[in-house]
Amino acid sequence: MKIGDPRKAYLIPEGSKLKLSDRDPSSIALCPKGSKSTTQELFDGLRDRIQAQQKVLFAEGKQRVLVIIQAMDTGGKDGCVKSVFSRVDPQGIRVMSFKKPTEDEMAHDFLWRIHPHVPANGEIAVFNRSHYEDIIAVRVKKIFEDAVWKRRYRHVIEFEQMLAEEGTTIIKLFLHISKGEQKRRLEARLVNPMKHWKFHPDDLTDRGQWDEFQHAYEDLIERTSTKHAPWYVIPANKKWYRNLCVARLFADTLEDLDMKYPEPGWDVGSIEIDD
Amino acid sequence: MKIGDPRKAYLIPEGSKLKLSDRDPSSIALCPKGSKSTTQELFDGLRDRIQAQQKVLFAEGKQRVLVIIQAMDTGGKDGCVKSVFSRVDPQGIRVMSFKKPTEDEMAHDFLWRIHPHVPANGEIAVFNRSHYEDIIAVRVKKIFEDAVWKRRYRHVIEFEQMLAEEGTTIIKLFLHISKGEQKRRLEARLVNPMKHWKFHPDDLTDRGQWDEFQHAYEDLIERTSTKHAPWYVIPANKKWYRNLCVARLFADTLEDLDMKYPEPGWDVGSIEIDD
Repeated sequence: MKIGDPRKAYLIPEGSKLKLSDRDPSSIALCPKGSKSTTQELFDGLRDRIQAQQKVLFAEGKQRVLVIIQAMDTGGKDGCVKSVFSRVDPQGIRVMSFKKPTEDEMAHDFLWRIHPHVPANGEIAVFNRSHYEDIIAVRVKKIFEDAVWKRRYRHVIEFEQMLAEEGTTIIKLFLHISKGEQKRRLEARLVNPMKHWKFHPDDLTDRGQWDEFQHAYEDLIERTSTKHAPWYVIPANKKWYRNLCVARLFADTLEDLDMKYPEPGWDVGSIEIDD
Repeated sequence: MKIGDPRKAYLIPEGSKLKLSDRDPSSIALCPKGSKSTTQELFDGLRDRIQAQQKVLFAEGKQRVLVIIQAMDTGGKDGCVKSVFSRVDPQGIRVMSFKKPTEDEMAHDFLWRIHPHVPANGEIAVFNRSHYEDIIAVRVKKIFEDAVWKRRYRHVIEFEQMLAEEGTTIIKLFLHISKGEQKRRLEARLVNPMKHWKFHPDDLTDRGQWDEFQHAYEDLIERTSTKHAPWYVIPANKKWYRNLCVARLFADTLEDLDMKYPEPGWDVGSIEIDD
């Protein structure tokens, strides 16, 4: 079993247009003969590649990698993080979930709570939600006047460019599901007491604004996909396919960094260890 | 005794040129008849204005104020902070001294260690040294290649503009002393055992590069003085005059914010307190 290149298929190039309704969230185009069971080996291989790359990233200590994941509610952010990144040495990866801002966070600029969590040299950071909520939610829920989220496009572009220029590799993933798939997943949460905690009545309010959210995401992704920090729109109705795509995309991204285990800074032959 | 308007006299307007050698560090032009003893009352009055404004800033909780102070060694950063801000309610002011970056800080973008310390609503933050060290020192001491500090001009402008647009008032002060005055102050540190801790042999290395530092500061101030975050060059050979200027500049800045104590959000008359 093989999978095509999601970085080619799902990249939203800088300056291009995006219409989410033209993109099939149920697509499995890069692995058309696959299924959950028949792709397990392929998926394990991709995770092995990620695991190996993370080790050299950490040892080399020169690169920083940031993965930003956004989606509608039930879009699969948690599941994707768990599946794709769970085999990585936890010392080298930090997953940060950004919730509704606290009062203290609201009392600062919107990037204040984000900045401390960007990755250090040798680290991978995964943002489960991010500063993009401060554009999307602010816009759709009309939390501030339009001027605020509009200028934040520029703020995030500039912020991410600074991070990139200072040495951070950034990829941004939008997990794209359909409204029907969301219905099924919300119902599953209501039926299953083990999933009750994942449900919140506010989810239904957001669902009532589905079209506004989709439009806001289109606008956001068009305006903030840059060469330094590109957006990828991943078909995410099928969880196995979404995970495969994200794993291949991430493995390829890491391998392109061309990292190496560091040479020792001393003459190995000259070192003697006393009895 | 009176003092003229330092915001007019010492502002470096956006896009203008700066030659530090044309500016007399011993000037007392805004208070030409003053001296340390004859201006104490004037200074106390300015501190009262600052104190009063800080109270309403805190109560209103809508504005954030950031003061950035840079200078050559012995330029008077510590002394100025102590004199001008020591009467302000410590709950409403945070002074942050940025030292040589740690290894952990160096493993991030240069704004990473700065961002967590920007002021919240109702707060005054004072940066004793700042992200500007990551341009000045990096440039003069050739810590990284030129491209790094050059693009940081843009990074700091964009960062500060974002802070400003999100509600932060920023003023930046360069305390301007002469090379001769630095010599006197360094000698005083060597003579006085109480000041020995303030001396470090590295200061002499920096002093050896006086002209390079002056030139780097000229370039820096020219390029990063913006409407949103202006630089002021304060004559600082005379400590009493430097303190007067900074106090008046800061008092005026706060008063221009036109802050008000908030109205209660409930009907005061309707509240009854039980026995």
